[in-house]
Amino acid sequence: MSSSRPHDVVVVGSGFGGLFTTRALASVPGVRVTVISGTNHHLFQPLLYQVATGVLSSGEVAPATRDVLRRQRNARVLLGVVEDVDLDAREVVHSSPAGVTRTRYDSLVVAAGAGQSYFGHDEFAEHAPGMKSLDDALEIRGRIYGAFELAEVTRDEAAVERLLTFVVVGAGPTGVEMAGQVAELAHRVLPGQFRHVDPRRTRVLLVDPVDHVLPGFPERLSEAATRELEAQGVEIRTGWKVVDVDAEAVEIEDGDGGRQRVPASCKIWAAGVQGAPIGRVLAERAGVETDRSGRVPVEADCTLPGHPEVFVVGDLMRMDGLPGVAQVAMQSGQHAADQIRRRVDGRPTGQPFAYRDKGSMATVSRFFAVAQVGPVQTSGFVAWLLWLGVHLVYLVGFKNRLTTLLHWAVSFVGRGRAERAATWQQVVGRNAVRQDAGASFAP
Amino acid sequence: MSSSRPHDVVVVGSGFGGLFTTRALASVPGVRVTVISGTNHHLFQPLLYQVATGVLSSGEVAPATRDVLRRQRNARVLLGVVEDVDLDAREVVHSSPAGVTRTRYDSLVVAAGAGQSYFGHDEFAEHAPGMKSLDDALEIRGRIYGAFELAEVTRDEAAVERLLTFVVVGAGPTGVEMAGQVAELAHRVLPGQFRHVDPRRTRVLLVDPVDHVLPGFPERLSEAATRELEAQGVEIRTGWKVVDVDAEAVEIEDGDGGRQRVPASCKIWAAGVQGAPIGRVLAERAGVETDRSGRVPVEADCTLPGHPEVFVVGDLMRMDGLPGVAQVAMQSGQHAADQIRRRVDGRPTGQPFAYRDKGSMATVSRFFAVAQVGPVQTSGFVAWLLWLGVHLVYLVGFKNRLTTLLHWAVSFVGRGRAERAATWQQVVGRNAVRQDAGASFAP
Repeated sequence: MSSSRPHDVVVVGSGFGGLFTTRALASVPGVRVTVISGTNHHLFQPLLYQVATGVLSSGEVAPATRDVLRRQRNARVLLGVVEDVDLDAREVVHSSPAGVTRTRYDSLVVAAGAGQSYFGHDEFAEHAPGMKSLDDALEIRGRIYGAFELAEVTRDEAAVERLLTFVVVGAGPTGVEMAGQVAELAHRVLPGQFRHVDPRRTRVLLVDPVDHVLPGFPERLSEAATRELEAQGVEIRTGWKVVDVDAEAVEIEDGDGGRQRVPASCKIWAAGVQGAPIGRVLAERAGVETDRSGRVPVEADCTLPGHPEVFVVGDLMRMDGLPGVAQVAMQSGQHAADQIRRRVDGRPTGQPFAYRDKGSMATVSRFFAVAQVGPVQTSGFVAWLLWLGVHLVYLVGFKNRLTTLLHWAVSFVGRGRAERAATWQQVVGRNAVRQDAGASFAP
Repeated sequence: MSSSRPHDVVVVGSGFGGLFTTRALASVPGVRVTVISGTNHHLFQPLLYQVATGVLSSGEVAPATRDVLRRQRNARVLLGVVEDVDLDAREVVHSSPAGVTRTRYDSLVVAAGAGQSYFGHDEFAEHAPGMKSLDDALEIRGRIYGAFELAEVTRDEAAVERLLTFVVVGAGPTGVEMAGQVAELAHRVLPGQFRHVDPRRTRVLLVDPVDHVLPGFPERLSEAATRELEAQGVEIRTGWKVVDVDAEAVEIEDGDGGRQRVPASCKIWAAGVQGAPIGRVLAERAGVETDRSGRVPVEADCTLPGHPEVFVVGDLMRMDGLPGVAQVAMQSGQHAADQIRRRVDGRPTGQPFAYRDKGSMATVSRFFAVAQVGPVQTSGFVAWLLWLGVHLVYLVGFKNRLTTLLHWAVSFVGRGRAERAATWQQVVGRNAVRQDAGASFAP
């Protein structure tokens, strides 16, 4: 296909799937890429928990997408939420405060990702924010540091106990990392900064209906993570299910139906995922059914059934046996880009996507991670160094990897948390904005 | 006073005034300090414009107050908005989501600062956020980068023009710095990152009813700043007054009553200041009158008339001829601390506060500042180096001064802005929260 009209690729989403698709198309002649995303940044989600706990700043995990792609002349970036896809006209309908726009495509790659799933209990979201966006992380940061602040100011013992109880729902990597970080705040960072309350009284509960932490990891690593979490003082409640959440507490239930109400101000939801809403719209248009998590079933080559010109990649893609991890998003995005290149070149397409599992890792505490790379399973300091190296490599290309390293030094070698600032709005919560003392009030 | 009961000092506010008061009391035996603030951080306000324009992160200009004071064993920090002062019982009434608390004092230092004044037009605030708090800066960051994003996505020429017109109200240091930074974004940072719209089309208007920029600075420096701003493409509208602001435009009026409506999406209010609300409460309790800016008149020793045990310092203090700058806050805070120390020691008090003007400076653009230090007036690169040095010195003691230097290198030597990430909520504004694409939605 060497016609003069360019081949228009629309990429929905600026996460790992969208970014890796776009970059893989950089040197393909005759291709124009339009990235449409609801945020102006590429979110490096594996480090989002460090934003939530004050280790890193927003910018360090979320460089502006158009900055990352500035040298890729065949790519443009548009801010917008994709609300519909017209599969017949081959147009994407996206909206922003600037209005509704329709953008035509020859090939479409939907990499809109996933949000948090509350398993039918969306009312929990207000009390237990998820860990999927910058908004989430900054909200949680305000709640974590806010809880310690309020524990210092109140004289009500029951309130102190509630404020110093943190419940993390979901014992996958994000949940484990959050629980470990909050425990470290309580035991290593904050003691000595409070006069009334002892942050070491903090309880951190890690709750998951599955009966062990890090499901999906080898048993040995799960056990090593469990021991390290317990050494950090995290109370592991695996085999327990959260059945209710309100402003003051969570209610959890064990396998035998025994119930417990745990007073806790700060709850963090790191449990299920739910595909972005555009997934359901797209599936409906194509006459297929999303799965329970709202993911779109695809053919072996990551295309939408009946639409070889439409790809679904990353967390929004439903393909048997593939987990919702960054590596799947990157590789499926690259596969889609490769298929598009073949199509533009006039070569045969339809090659199945073959996922190469490069391994998985999770940090449990400072200097302690668990990692599986091929046949190698390791836990402890070596795994932590591996974690550090891998994340720095993947951060390469972002301007601020140097400041990230410095912030890590401050946090892991020192005892600091450089990004603790929480605005009053964040401390008191989205729904109860109060006036600032000496700042930002309308007099 | 060597009695065994400690002398309780309550400090209201964690800005320059509050922090310098507290630190000056660190080594005074028998004194206990309670800092009560509505934010968990000490805001380094002179660099707030760099947070608003993406140069620095929140944490770099806003370290946690209790982290800054962690080694000062005689100080505690409480989160709360001070709502009333009981001058007879010597108690401060402060509230937080944890409830209402009364805290007793022997000496009280009110350093609650000032917010933005809209000169009787509080309805402007929604459309033209101020520059006083982190909330403000992050809001403005979202609006600035959001405006460029929306200009790229819309096809409506009038909308592009409106989106690429930025109006800065107030030509003091903050206004000049904001105008210079937005111009630099438009002409140096963003070109090459957009495909449809040319950021160099951006107009930046700097509006002030006073007939020259940087009022309060020597005329020569004001003229130098004017020339540099014009060289950066900033349109200076001094002698013009903003008479109306709505979502789409500002209306400005020159000295002869001529009016102009300037369509502009992003407006930044860096004009007047208004003392924190507690100032008015305090004045009422003491039977004195605040001035038009809501500042509390004080005796020569910074005490509230009739109450030698109550000090008002910093921006909230009304003392003839003193400007609302960081130096006044620091020095008046230190004066209050000195008076308290004398009182505790049983020495005579009532010494008048003598302000030593150490000079003033403002950055206009990268490598260009204006500075007055004693009899020396300088503008250009040397003044900019001076600005850099002074701000680094004052940042010393904050863990992240190293990362600040790095971010400055990225921004001033390079062309980057490391902290551009704006959440969807910030781009679309507080009043129109939309769902995120692929993140943070309730499915």
